[in-house]
Amino acid sequence: MTGIKAQGEKRLVLASGRAHPELAKEIAKELEIDLLPTSAYDFANGEIYVRFEESVRGTDVFVIQAHPAPINEWLMEHLIMVDTLKRASAKRITVIAPFYPYARQDKKHRGREPISARLVADMYKTAGADRLISVDLHTAQIQGFFDGPVDHLMAIPLLADYVRTRVDLDNVTVVSPDTGRVRVAEQWAERLGGAPLAFVHKSRDVNVPNQAVAKTVVGQVEGRECVLIDDMIDTGGTIAGAVQVLMNAGAKDVIIASTHAVFSDPAARRLAESGAREVVVTNTLPITADKQFSQLTVLSIAPLIARAISEVFEDGSVTSLFDGKA
Amino acid sequence: MTGIKAQGEKRLVLASGRAHPELAKEIAKELEIDLLPTSAYDFANGEIYVRFEESVRGTDVFVIQAHPAPINEWLMEHLIMVDTLKRASAKRITVIAPFYPYARQDKKHRGREPISARLVADMYKTAGADRLISVDLHTAQIQGFFDGPVDHLMAIPLLADYVRTRVDLDNVTVVSPDTGRVRVAEQWAERLGGAPLAFVHKSRDVNVPNQAVAKTVVGQVEGRECVLIDDMIDTGGTIAGAVQVLMNAGAKDVIIASTHAVFSDPAARRLAESGAREVVVTNTLPITADKQFSQLTVLSIAPLIARAISEVFEDGSVTSLFDGKA
Amino acid sequence: MTGIKAQGEKRLVLASGRAHPELAKEIAKELEIDLLPTSAYDFANGEIYVRFEESVRGTDVFVIQAHPAPINEWLMEHLIMVDTLKRASAKRITVIAPFYPYARQDKKHRGREPISARLVADMYKTAGADRLISVDLHTAQIQGFFDGPVDHLMAIPLLADYVRTRVDLDNVTVVSPDTGRVRVAEQWAERLGGAPLAFVHKSRDVNVPNQAVAKTVVGQVEGRECVLIDDMIDTGGTIAGAVQVLMNAGAKDVIIASTHAVFSDPAARRLAESGAREVVVTNTLPITADKQFSQLTVLSIAPLIARAISEVFEDGSVTSLFDGKA
Amino acid sequence: MTGIKAQGEKRLVLASGRAHPELAKEIAKELEIDLLPTSAYDFANGEIYVRFEESVRGTDVFVIQAHPAPINEWLMEHLIMVDTLKRASAKRITVIAPFYPYARQDKKHRGREPISARLVADMYKTAGADRLISVDLHTAQIQGFFDGPVDHLMAIPLLADYVRTRVDLDNVTVVSPDTGRVRVAEQWAERLGGAPLAFVHKSRDVNVPNQAVAKTVVGQVEGRECVLIDDMIDTGGTIAGAVQVLMNAGAKDVIIASTHAVFSDPAARRLAESGAREVVVTNTLPITADKQFSQLTVLSIAPLIARAISEVFEDGSVTSLFDGKA
Amino acid sequence: MTGIKAQGEKRLVLASGRAHPELAKEIAKELEIDLLPTSAYDFANGEIYVRFEESVRGTDVFVIQAHPAPINEWLMEHLIMVDTLKRASAKRITVIAPFYPYARQDKKHRGREPISARLVADMYKTAGADRLISVDLHTAQIQGFFDGPVDHLMAIPLLADYVRTRVDLDNVTVVSPDTGRVRVAEQWAERLGGAPLAFVHKSRDVNVPNQAVAKTVVGQVEGRECVLIDDMIDTGGTIAGAVQVLMNAGAKDVIIASTHAVFSDPAARRLAESGAREVVVTNTLPITADKQFSQLTVLSIAPLIARAISEVFEDGSVTSLFDGKA
Amino acid sequence: MTGIKAQGEKRLVLASGRAHPELAKEIAKELEIDLLPTSAYDFANGEIYVRFEESVRGTDVFVIQAHPAPINEWLMEHLIMVDTLKRASAKRITVIAPFYPYARQDKKHRGREPISARLVADMYKTAGADRLISVDLHTAQIQGFFDGPVDHLMAIPLLADYVRTRVDLDNVTVVSPDTGRVRVAEQWAERLGGAPLAFVHKSRDVNVPNQAVAKTVVGQVEGRECVLIDDMIDTGGTIAGAVQVLMNAGAKDVIIASTHAVFSDPAARRLAESGAREVVVTNTLPITADKQFSQLTVLSIAPLIARAISEVFEDGSVTSLFDGKA
Repeated sequence: MTGIKAQGEKRLVLASGRAHPELAKEIAKELEIDLLPTSAYDFANGEIYVRFEESVRGTDVFVIQAHPAPINEWLMEHLIMVDTLKRASAKRITVIAPFYPYARQDKKHRGREPISARLVADMYKTAGADRLISVDLHTAQIQGFFDGPVDHLMAIPLLADYVRTRVDLDNVTVVSPDTGRVRVAEQWAERLGGAPLAFVHKSRDVNVPNQAVAKTVVGQVEGRECVLIDDMIDTGGTIAGAVQVLMNAGAKDVIIASTHAVFSDPAARRLAESGAREVVVTNTLPITADKQFSQLTVLSIAPLIARAISEVFEDGSVTSLFDGKA
Repeated sequence: MTGIKAQGEKRLVLASGRAHPELAKEIAKELEIDLLPTSAYDFANGEIYVRFEESVRGTDVFVIQAHPAPINEWLMEHLIMVDTLKRASAKRITVIAPFYPYARQDKKHRGREPISARLVADMYKTAGADRLISVDLHTAQIQGFFDGPVDHLMAIPLLADYVRTRVDLDNVTVVSPDTGRVRVAEQWAERLGGAPLAFVHKSRDVNVPNQAVAKTVVGQVEGRECVLIDDMIDTGGTIAGAVQVLMNAGAKDVIIASTHAVFSDPAARRLAESGAREVVVTNTLPITADKQFSQLTVLSIAPLIARAISEVFEDGSVTSLFDGKA
Repeated sequence: MTGIKAQGEKRLVLASGRAHPELAKEIAKELEIDLLPTSAYDFANGEIYVRFEESVRGTDVFVIQAHPAPINEWLMEHLIMVDTLKRASAKRITVIAPFYPYARQDKKHRGREPISARLVADMYKTAGADRLISVDLHTAQIQGFFDGPVDHLMAIPLLADYVRTRVDLDNVTVVSPDTGRVRVAEQWAERLGGAPLAFVHKSRDVNVPNQAVAKTVVGQVEGRECVLIDDMIDTGGTIAGAVQVLMNAGAKDVIIASTHAVFSDPAARRLAESGAREVVVTNTLPITADKQFSQLTVLSIAPLIARAISEVFEDGSVTSLFDGKA
Repeated sequence: MTGIKAQGEKRLVLASGRAHPELAKEIAKELEIDLLPTSAYDFANGEIYVRFEESVRGTDVFVIQAHPAPINEWLMEHLIMVDTLKRASAKRITVIAPFYPYARQDKKHRGREPISARLVADMYKTAGADRLISVDLHTAQIQGFFDGPVDHLMAIPLLADYVRTRVDLDNVTVVSPDTGRVRVAEQWAERLGGAPLAFVHKSRDVNVPNQAVAKTVVGQVEGRECVLIDDMIDTGGTIAGAVQVLMNAGAKDVIIASTHAVFSDPAARRLAESGAREVVVTNTLPITADKQFSQLTVLSIAPLIARAISEVFEDGSVTSLFDGKA
Repeated sequence: MTGIKAQGEKRLVLASGRAHPELAKEIAKELEIDLLPTSAYDFANGEIYVRFEESVRGTDVFVIQAHPAPINEWLMEHLIMVDTLKRASAKRITVIAPFYPYARQDKKHRGREPISARLVADMYKTAGADRLISVDLHTAQIQGFFDGPVDHLMAIPLLADYVRTRVDLDNVTVVSPDTGRVRVAEQWAERLGGAPLAFVHKSRDVNVPNQAVAKTVVGQVEGRECVLIDDMIDTGGTIAGAVQVLMNAGAKDVIIASTHAVFSDPAARRLAESGAREVVVTNTLPITADKQFSQLTVLSIAPLIARAISEVFEDGSVTSLFDGKA
Repeated sequence: MTGIKAQGEKRLVLASGRAHPELAKEIAKELEIDLLPTSAYDFANGEIYVRFEESVRGTDVFVIQAHPAPINEWLMEHLIMVDTLKRASAKRITVIAPFYPYARQDKKHRGREPISARLVADMYKTAGADRLISVDLHTAQIQGFFDGPVDHLMAIPLLADYVRTRVDLDNVTVVSPDTGRVRVAEQWAERLGGAPLAFVHKSRDVNVPNQAVAKTVVGQVEGRECVLIDDMIDTGGTIAGAVQVLMNAGAKDVIIASTHAVFSDPAARRLAESGAREVVVTNTLPITADKQFSQLTVLSIAPLIARAISEVFEDGSVTSLFDGKA
């Protein structure tokens, strides 16, 4: 038979953008590898330049970027890195976006709006991404925006395992800060041993006809420890408001748990002053010094992402990391 | 200048599959047109044959199909009709699927599942669809599954306008049958003048520690008229169970309102015997005689779809039909 | 060099739809493997649910489905399985459709018809199929409908090897039941040692001017054993009619040979009563008890498909299975 | 409302490659327009340059090219013209390829062959073609190779209308020169009033067992006028051989009818000397002086193409040109 | 004939991003229209929100954005606007990017670099752009990066017409600041009546062997007025250095002309202090107060873009604006 | 775990078109392999037939074709070979086009021209090419025309290494024959130790106002050895004219160096008689006997291409072949 035969090999490479190098390094350390040597800088007019300093030909590349503000910068850098890898003959490119950009614009809330979350998925595809890994998508339907495999990792087990050591499981209620997160609150409730649910909502008080609309709690929280959950905390307005409503409704105390600590100004101050006992988040986004406060607990997402990378590279099962649920 | 110049013209055509001819005829009547003459039948082995009996060259075609059981038959017929129109040189093809097929499989609930709702969107695109019109998608994110414009019509105003004539607005609570529809219940509540919310949920009773898990209501319903809402009723098990829970919790009475009357067996019997005062649905799906029962009220979706078609054809605004919200 | 190196491996997996599990099991047995554990069932409204119970990440999957009635159900299930595999990170997906759906609608016979066979190819591609394996396509041009490699297996050698043991090769004529299969009849004739050809056709009798049109035989069949061939037998009307014409023309006897036993009602009865000595088919489609009759001989296609899978997986040559002809 | 409104207009433009300017001019004359002024020439190394000398912005362009030898030159010119039109903002581009290039390579006859006819369709699409018009495709399935509308024109009515004036309809047999054209012969037979069929074929003589294989006629031709049909005549070997076989079998005389006069050397000589009374073709390909001979009759395809262009431009019906059959 | 016929109409709409509203307003004024009412703002974490306040269904939209720093913000806003228009059923979307983003990364200068200019083109396409209008692309090949029509407008005539009023045409030399712009300098020279060329270059002095490499002028500039040209001025380092080299080489004086005034810090100071008599640019990019200086002349590109929009909308000829050259 | 596991293997195969078999053989010899056995011939009407005589299933194929005149033939053959490989299940297809076809038509020089170089890239992609290897593209931006990895090999090091042995490096000037190649001349100058630059150009003589325009040299060449460079020599008119201008300007002598020897008639005669001391080219294109002349030196590009193939197959680094520059 004509030609040359050779043994097939595969090589895992981890590349990182500039938005959150600590997370990338932590993941690399978990995997016991070095990050791909990379040059990346901005030109004077803000155009981003990227070059990889080592051959990636034929490799199985995982390229991670966090997406804090300025989010469009980091998104473009991510896309440019993917383009670079494609043109440098990487064999397979897996984008890791722990906090998926524009996840909240996942539908037209009104006419003549974009669906930016789909646009982001299409741009990753266009740039050359074969696969996507993300953590706690704002809505799980975003998986369906990408034309290819998406490994949707869940931080809820990580957060819940921590929170259950911090509350009395016999006296805890899981609270959604609005009507859109009740399903997620239910998943939390299951992990906390079937805890009851409540949610905060603008409505008339049932018992006082003709009363003006105000934020009230639906569900019973009086005298109970409340775990107030959300997928992300941006400016913290909604969540801090919810703490207030819960305290007014007689809650014993409140722990806030959220995967993505966006923490746009003035989130840190608001959370610190909200009255919540503790705020538990992960490091899917960098939490700079000015965003920290005494009640804050940050759990690392790095081990989870590292395990997912290993499973993907070794053709194992990411689903197995979540008892068949992801 | 070389060539021939002519006045531009456009022609609206409405074609229909065989699943629900009554709806198509009703829409055609609203538009004051005839349906496109069409031959469609099954070969002995179930393969579907379609032919249009009139030229569709250069037309702006709207091709409607309902998707009751056997749903895969009707979906394939719809796709084949789109292919036929594309190859027959239609200028623009708008698919109308009032009840979007496989809408519930809009994400991977667990690992190694399909996202069939995205697959359906891609198949319509592949067959040749330029645009999509649907009514009350199971989740609004499905809009983002289609690579092109989607006009997402809302039946809630239609249903709510009717329901508000049937209840005491000062004593009504909107109830979601599970945790996933609370946001939609909130939209209903707004349309009913800021009514309070409740939802049904499996949980421990807060007041009885260590009690076994059972379905309970979160929110206050005692002595109140309950509007129990959902986007679709399939076998009716969940919704009938919710009626029971509400009655047990002291609700005054219950009206069920849902856009899509899937009514798989034994839905009709279950609903009839559920104790609900009235069940209000639309005709996005055909409701055959065996699916009817005394408490059932069916509102026609045809005028809404007809108006949407007109706006699309005349380059008007579909958004305007919903006060800017669609 | 940065990263982790590992040995490349590949893993063959065989998944099957629900339409014809016997064939899939037979192929698996030939390959000495188990079928991929799979959950598949219908929701109440007919929507199909699929989940694979074992990781398929990085695998070389062959996913087989037969396409008997209700053909649209099985086609959709096939497509959903492909989507599931794509999203579950299978490395390569080969669709096996022994009887290609909608193969007869491979062109516009008249204006404003679909080309459903192309639509089917595009849908497999859209769902995520990389490659296609089929048996005796209605027209070989269908290979060109799929944008990717197609392995077109031929059952004619299998059928012909059997038939040559059942006839007197010095007194056999190969007969096409209409004008569209004469080329295929010629291939049969070659395999039967250069046997003469004939075909059945509606025409005026040459010797009787002005006679009404009727089915006649072109070619000589008097006193000869006739092998009446076709790629598929659906309701059996054409083929049973052709037996009659041959017998009327003085044929000694008739053997029918066809790859695909669609056998829509009343094919079994028609064939049983047609006067043909034997009807030889393969099991590309399931032949349920009610479709069987005494003159029927079913040859298994499983060994051929199993060999093709092996060649594909091991980067061998499928062409070599057919002496360079496929 | 914001913006500027204007009346919609459409403009038909006809552009032509250099392969067969006479045909393009004839069509333009039928349409009463001028051809689009075009510069096209070859660079020294054979690269083709094209420029249109007039704006085509917003036009409905029909771009015609014939495909005689050197066929790859003319195909590339055609593709480059389409690219030019796309980049020059033509609104819609309809490719007219009266003789579809590489139509005979419409399937893999053996393993490791191309399907060039599909490749050609994909290249037209890639270059920017929206639609395709062709005449008497080698196999009708080629329609399905193009992802878009194909208007498949038929020259058979044109040819048959002429031939019926040249034969005794009560004593005519339609003959296919091989087993692959019997279906087409049948269509001819219908147009000639239900004439009987025959075909030429390599086989053993039924009446002489063990005889060597030779070309024989299946069907009765003795004493009859034979119309020997084919879609194209390339070198003329098969067709001239068929004439000989028919004459040997006692045919009264033979008329050859074929849509595409490829006439590669030595077709003209072979046909002239074949013994056929007349050879009837169309001008889908240029027939240069050296390809002409006394028995040759050339019918013009221009009126048919011109009518199809008109129907397409005016959103009429091409199907209507063929009694619903195309 | 079935359906509704209506007169075709088209409507031009001009939408603008937030990067350079003055330019958009100027163009709108030229066209005598209002800009499309648009809401656009940033969320706290930098995600951009866009909504159009008026229906764009069926319109011919031109969506303009300038791309100064922060360029990735403005690029993302542009893409999101295109997505919004696509999903709002605009009929045709023409992107206007007067200064094409990432134009300098139009090739891999070294291995493992991106080709960001192609990525940008693909992202516009993915978002939904049908057409592109840009001004003086860094290299004309970028036209070929977009899969669709590109109208490449030229500011050189505008700039040159001004410059010719400012120099003695009999004593002017056109100078390229490096070896990559000599071709463009040549185009300038033609517009200035066949002026001689020179370029600045790092090299050994021919007359002094073994001398160290330094920037020198190739071509004669002594005593001559020099027009130093470039497509864009970013930080101004190269161009200010070139002025110095020219003055050292005895140039009489220097006028700088460039289409795109990127003017990243410290460009304004450098140019002001460079010794150039005048710096002529256009307003393809906003020139804020801090970027202005006494020698600066800004010509408006708005009339040119407005004329191009008119020609595109009215199916006229953009080429005609440049004597057949664009 | 279900299925069969096997060791991954990869197999390199080299296939060649008919345009320049010597080069393919030379490369195969460098790689110590045989060329893939291939049948390729023309049908009577010029249609090309290709078949590979050995299985290529699962292989890493490199398919090389040179593109001399008749260039469209060889391009089509190349595309058909790619289609064949795709349909024969090759795992990865790398197109090697040492001289990229239509590279000069890389932009619209005027309105209503094609961008044929992009069309060629798209056609390779459409046919099934995954990757591209080329040598000294006319403009490097062509890399960006292909949607995938392009390995852009440089012959300049090869040519320059030879030329530096043929000139006095202290007295050499690198000359571009026009304004478009000055950047490339600069790259040459660097490789020749920082030699000065010049270019030939039509202009007025600076020292003689009002003189008619003529070709002159910009830069100093008097008494110097000139290396006149270009990427390709087609008819040789420009380059021979440039030699004349240089000699007239007092150059000591001239060596011409160019990668691609297109040598369309009358290039060989013109170059031989041009006065140049030596003409150095590579064999990216076949140089038939009639194109040879005494001053011609042909360097083989085969070792470079062979090394690139090895690096690609073994997942090494092509960039490393050029010190990080490609």
